[in-house]
Amino acid sequence: MEHLKTRKSIRKYSSRQVDDAVLKEILELAERTQTMGNLQLYSVVVTRDEKMKEMLSPAHFNQPMVKQAPVVLTICADFNRTTKWAECRNAHPGYDNMLSFMNASSDALLYTQTLCNLAESMGLGVCYLGTTLYMPMQIIEVLNLPKLVFPVATITLGWPDESPTPSDRLPLSAVVHKEMYSDYFPEDIDMLYAEKERLPENKKFVEINHKETLAQVFTDIRYTKSANEAMSVTLLQALKQQGFIQE
Amino acid sequence: MEHLKTRKSIRKYSSRQVDDAVLKEILELAERTQTMGNLQLYSVVVTRDEKMKEMLSPAHFNQPMVKQAPVVLTICADFNRTTKWAECRNAHPGYDNMLSFMNASSDALLYTQTLCNLAESMGLGVCYLGTTLYMPMQIIEVLNLPKLVFPVATITLGWPDESPTPSDRLPLSAVVHKEMYSDYFPEDIDMLYAEKERLPENKKFVEINHKETLAQVFTDIRYTKSANEAMSVTLLQALKQQGFIQE
Repeated sequence: MEHLKTRKSIRKYSSRQVDDAVLKEILELAERTQTMGNLQLYSVVVTRDEKMKEMLSPAHFNQPMVKQAPVVLTICADFNRTTKWAECRNAHPGYDNMLSFMNASSDALLYTQTLCNLAESMGLGVCYLGTTLYMPMQIIEVLNLPKLVFPVATITLGWPDESPTPSDRLPLSAVVHKEMYSDYFPEDIDMLYAEKERLPENKKFVEINHKETLAQVFTDIRYTKSANEAMSVTLLQALKQQGFIQE
Repeated sequence: MEHLKTRKSIRKYSSRQVDDAVLKEILELAERTQTMGNLQLYSVVVTRDEKMKEMLSPAHFNQPMVKQAPVVLTICADFNRTTKWAECRNAHPGYDNMLSFMNASSDALLYTQTLCNLAESMGLGVCYLGTTLYMPMQIIEVLNLPKLVFPVATITLGWPDESPTPSDRLPLSAVVHKEMYSDYFPEDIDMLYAEKERLPENKKFVEINHKETLAQVFTDIRYTKSANEAMSVTLLQALKQQGFIQE
């Protein structure tokens, strides 16, 4: 997995198609990922059709990758299939609850990441769209997702038509704790974020957004309190609609 | 990533230690995983101390791997560090909500899976403990997790002392949908689950549990409605306690 050292999300794709055989290989091998009770609590909707991409696009704030990528994958937490299986086998399922949603989400996200690692190790480019959780209702409608199915990740996939420089990461000491969680004092924050804040690309990011600090770009523009709170409401509504939270 | 073809969760570990350098390499390289806004919304607590393992063990239903593995990793959704950073930088964070929890959980789980892929590609054995979500309060207490930090995955890690046969998986057609989700009719279920239900190990599993069908083993014994509902209540309580859901 040497590719990881230089990996970068790819947002521009060449016109070269992703063969069905290649896609099948990745989707199938990713099935080896560990899964709760070997139940495989996920489904993948493969979008190749231009019209379907156009319909998905607004749910992802019209990010151009959705229409430009040859393949869009929507990975869903899925307790519907297991529930249907149980109902066909004289068994009484009880997966219309929050724990089951989290279990299925976990399965779906672990599967997603093996899939990303596989695709990237083969030279394909992927971009993970976090927007999936922002307007889940739209995605649910477009993809016709039944109860107990919930979209948790979207991957755009194709052969890269760009080779961006890997982005910065926090030092390992920022994310690893020995034996117990040690909370961050202001001096820890200064030390752990110093390199990130010093980088020319991040300084430019602050400048073009007319902000004082890099953190403000996130709190005031990219991920604001008001947007997060509004989208938390719709997220919970969507979880109710899909049957994972009862009224 | 050829190792995937034969991978299997490893529950028995040899006495060989996992060197700090090896662990550091895996933890650090996994940081290359894509993350929301490059914020790295996760933390990893590394447990090597015997007493700490003993304290974590009950939260994982005393599964022997926790005490037997040389290393236990608890991966947490973490908006605490980013919030502290913002507070130190004259920025006003708004991450005490459900969407932020899901965003941080996603980051944490994607990181976790790259870490698993890496460890397994190096010959290490891992076991993913889904129990993390069952009694999160106990883990929060033992590891001293502050508000806006929530345990979402636990990995036991070590050099394998067993070589189990890979377990079965559903055919790809069971998990992949083209363009739209196509729901499962009873005849689909019969076809897609036929191989799984025919396997001698799964038939034995039904027999030793004194059940009629494989699905009943899951609904009546392993993941029951009553347990799921009770644990959903404590999961939501823990999310409130950690500040991701407001009263």
